[in-house]
Amino acid sequence: MNTATRAGPAPHLEPASQTGWRRTWFDIIYRHDTPISRNFDLLLVVAILASVLAVMLDSVASIHHGHARLLYRLEWAFTLLFTAEYVLRLLVVRRPLRYALSIWGVIDLLSILPTYLSLLLPGSQSLLVVRILRILRLFRILKLTRYVEESGVLARALWRSRRKIFVFISAVLTIVVIAGAVMYVIEGPANGFDNIPLSMYWAIITVATVGFGDIVPHTATGRVVTSVLVLIGYSIIAVPTGIYTAELINNLREAEDEARSHDVRGCGHCGLLGHAADAAHCRRCGASLPRAD
Amino acid sequence: MNTATRAGPAPHLEPASQTGWRRTWFDIIYRHDTPISRNFDLLLVVAILASVLAVMLDSVASIHHGHARLLYRLEWAFTLLFTAEYVLRLLVVRRPLRYALSIWGVIDLLSILPTYLSLLLPGSQSLLVVRILRILRLFRILKLTRYVEESGVLARALWRSRRKIFVFISAVLTIVVIAGAVMYVIEGPANGFDNIPLSMYWAIITVATVGFGDIVPHTATGRVVTSVLVLIGYSIIAVPTGIYTAELINNLREAEDEARSHDVRGCGHCGLLGHAADAAHCRRCGASLPRAD
Amino acid sequence: MNTATRAGPAPHLEPASQTGWRRTWFDIIYRHDTPISRNFDLLLVVAILASVLAVMLDSVASIHHGHARLLYRLEWAFTLLFTAEYVLRLLVVRRPLRYALSIWGVIDLLSILPTYLSLLLPGSQSLLVVRILRILRLFRILKLTRYVEESGVLARALWRSRRKIFVFISAVLTIVVIAGAVMYVIEGPANGFDNIPLSMYWAIITVATVGFGDIVPHTATGRVVTSVLVLIGYSIIAVPTGIYTAELINNLREAEDEARSHDVRGCGHCGLLGHAADAAHCRRCGASLPRAD
Amino acid sequence: MNTATRAGPAPHLEPASQTGWRRTWFDIIYRHDTPISRNFDLLLVVAILASVLAVMLDSVASIHHGHARLLYRLEWAFTLLFTAEYVLRLLVVRRPLRYALSIWGVIDLLSILPTYLSLLLPGSQSLLVVRILRILRLFRILKLTRYVEESGVLARALWRSRRKIFVFISAVLTIVVIAGAVMYVIEGPANGFDNIPLSMYWAIITVATVGFGDIVPHTATGRVVTSVLVLIGYSIIAVPTGIYTAELINNLREAEDEARSHDVRGCGHCGLLGHAADAAHCRRCGASLPRAD
Repeated sequence: MNTATRAGPAPHLEPASQTGWRRTWFDIIYRHDTPISRNFDLLLVVAILASVLAVMLDSVASIHHGHARLLYRLEWAFTLLFTAEYVLRLLVVRRPLRYALSIWGVIDLLSILPTYLSLLLPGSQSLLVVRILRILRLFRILKLTRYVEESGVLARALWRSRRKIFVFISAVLTIVVIAGAVMYVIEGPANGFDNIPLSMYWAIITVATVGFGDIVPHTATGRVVTSVLVLIGYSIIAVPTGIYTAELINNLREAEDEARSHDVRGCGHCGLLGHAADAAHCRRCGASLPRAD
Repeated sequence: MNTATRAGPAPHLEPASQTGWRRTWFDIIYRHDTPISRNFDLLLVVAILASVLAVMLDSVASIHHGHARLLYRLEWAFTLLFTAEYVLRLLVVRRPLRYALSIWGVIDLLSILPTYLSLLLPGSQSLLVVRILRILRLFRILKLTRYVEESGVLARALWRSRRKIFVFISAVLTIVVIAGAVMYVIEGPANGFDNIPLSMYWAIITVATVGFGDIVPHTATGRVVTSVLVLIGYSIIAVPTGIYTAELINNLREAEDEARSHDVRGCGHCGLLGHAADAAHCRRCGASLPRAD
Repeated sequence: MNTATRAGPAPHLEPASQTGWRRTWFDIIYRHDTPISRNFDLLLVVAILASVLAVMLDSVASIHHGHARLLYRLEWAFTLLFTAEYVLRLLVVRRPLRYALSIWGVIDLLSILPTYLSLLLPGSQSLLVVRILRILRLFRILKLTRYVEESGVLARALWRSRRKIFVFISAVLTIVVIAGAVMYVIEGPANGFDNIPLSMYWAIITVATVGFGDIVPHTATGRVVTSVLVLIGYSIIAVPTGIYTAELINNLREAEDEARSHDVRGCGHCGLLGHAADAAHCRRCGASLPRAD
Repeated sequence: MNTATRAGPAPHLEPASQTGWRRTWFDIIYRHDTPISRNFDLLLVVAILASVLAVMLDSVASIHHGHARLLYRLEWAFTLLFTAEYVLRLLVVRRPLRYALSIWGVIDLLSILPTYLSLLLPGSQSLLVVRILRILRLFRILKLTRYVEESGVLARALWRSRRKIFVFISAVLTIVVIAGAVMYVIEGPANGFDNIPLSMYWAIITVATVGFGDIVPHTATGRVVTSVLVLIGYSIIAVPTGIYTAELINNLREAEDEARSHDVRGCGHCGLLGHAADAAHCRRCGASLPRAD
């Protein structure tokens, strides 16, 4: 992967014009390899983190009442800043609608819309919480760093093991459905297992070894069933780890093999690369190979 | 494994007759590779999921009272549907008794029996919960998909490590028995450790890191013992994961080795084995190699 | 490992005499490869499990009061049986004192002593719990089965990784000591963190993700520290698993390599074994080797 | 790594003078390979452990009141001992300021300062807890043992996987922020989810499978969200383990490869590399090989 390409704008993004202020701002906003665009990114990261922190603190009653005016002003400052950025993003790109409908465009809109809507629908507290999705905007910037390769390795291994993990989750959910029904019959509403969905919630909390303790078995039979369920959960916790580790080791080995195949001797006759370390002849044309050292 | 074979009926299932409606229905029910039989499978999956959901919701008091009539009718609709399917399955197969006594036949019967029995034994609430086993019928259809291979890999690794996991569970249970007895002596009924079986239940919940918190140590000695128990549990949680991961990696490597051993050709001149799949010449002596296909 | 040897008595055990009833009983008790000695083992397993179960049930108040007489008689029956076995074991072995002072001899004695002592020291309830150690006697018999090899693999990997696990436990304990002291200062006795040892107990329960919930942070700072502690615990839970898995994979690979080295070609000239698969000459004397197929 | 070097003083530490009492004490304190310096180390370990234990016990109200005088005297004895050691360390080293500003120098100072400050600032209980950091001084001595290699392997694998673990922690924290906000909206202050930071604390405790149970969902929707959150946590617990295990296995393999590459000799006749350590002849052409040493 070429760093210059990666730090440039995504391939489907093109500037609205090749010259003038639009081109300048396009480079500031969408490119990430010039000093000014890096400063822009940094400013954005700080603004996003500060605005998420403001949303969090605003939900604390004592802070909300003590600093209502300050938080209100801060919120509008962040909203106006993000609105300006959003409008700019649309203005300088060649196909604004396409950007607006992309994942990043939708997240950008969700970051500013709730504040405006709160003017029309006063008291819509839960709407304001949507602003917390601003945190997702961080990943746009994170995507540009070298961490993207690491997350690529992790995600690829996760993607490769998706079928095995689906099978595993199916098995866990079947155990949960049956355990939930059994515990509902054994313990019943008298002991807090009010209905099967609640029992299933309890079974998930238990098999995943969380164990809140708000619902617990009280009968001897229920405790035996719980012990068995817990031992099953304790044993099969190994399965996703095993799946994922095996896949990750495989991934790393393949990457290594590929890396190795790039720096071995080429055949002087036909140019084939990737010969085994002990090969004395080209495996395609049979010509002699230079010594490997 | 041949896809056609896998999608066909299980080897011990044969149609009752080679022609007529029985043959037609046999193909619809037991085969899985024609459009009509696939639609039948899909319909069955939807009916099973809907009926399991109905059983779950029926256990919620408010829903049970608010929609008693609807749920009752739905239940009878599902039961009649599954009964018709069950009778058909028996009619079109050559050896109905053999099918009825197989695992799938028993599960099919358990899926419909409770509703009929509830007419004879009114108020048998816990009997109705047996219907939740319908969820197991999903696996008959899951078995036909490509997920079966994935679960095969997982199950084979689990099967191979069965002895090691048995040894591990024995060690855990011995720790649990001794820890339970020790905590019963240290804490005693005054602190909620009423008897040894209850203490053992607590020890299982603790060593598996669930920790409900309904029973907790109150004495200093008890807390020291608990800390040691928890650290043991925390350290040995690694064991089943290690066992399983090692087995899974082994499995994958064997599959790879086997795949590789199929396209290994020996050099006719010097006898060297283990050539790359695309090699046309021996890498040692440069002699021509036979084509790999 | 030779099965016959393994099923025979341990090497340091010798019969008191080579003929007569002592020799007969020595073979019954200490050997494990004749039908009669196998039946003896089986009887012992059943008696051990039944007696442990009796000790457990005796601790349940309702069962203790309802079946006091039955349990009392059962206990004496088991004690007399195990006493007879213990005396026999000492009588038929050549060096009885050596056996009595071995681990198994001590466990045998601990299994019967508490019942006799309860005659002298009435009301010594906690003494009777010592009888639960009878469960350890099962391992003497388990040792003779093929499971011993599996547990050998597990134990060897655990033994090899002992230093790494010691380092890990030291790191965890240091985190626990510091976190305990910090939480004691932040939360203090008012929030249940009465003193540093109690805070350390809480930190162990938390970092190992057990989380009983009997002691929980109530201040904002305390919750931040707890969150950090939990994330640390969540991340480093990987470490023992990683250590153990890597060791286990290594172990299996070595076992494989060793197995492979046994069935390769020997040099016809000097007899050296263990040549690489592609070797054409003996690596010691340089003589030609037969083709490997 | 050379044992003598490792057991000697750190490279930047030089004695203040090459002869006299300063040199003698420098060797006692900073070297670790003579009998007297080893005894000094042992004495230090015992004093550190005893003083940490005293700090812990002093925080227990009953012990504090019952043994106030003893603990007070012990504390001053340890403080004077550690002060003497600290002053000596500064006196015998060539560049005392450099030592005082190193990590170990700061920890040494933090170990004694609180006791002196408690004379000036009476009642500064929380200050005294700083003394618990004395436990870190143990690692200076642990560093000299063979355990350092083991912890080196563990730490290197942790360091190599730092980027992947950073990505993982970022993903977990994003899930926590969103889950916290969602649960705050769904459950609200009425069910104990007072504000978003508290909800996030709950989400961390839940996703890490600790589950204190002080805050639990009470609505049906909240329980569904919790179940999903728990299943996510249960699945991704595999990720750090996978990362770390893969890295550790890689590390061990590299160490092996490196070890192997040191005794590789090339055949002077045909150039083949990779001979076994005990090979005297090339395995391909049979020519004599140079001795491996």
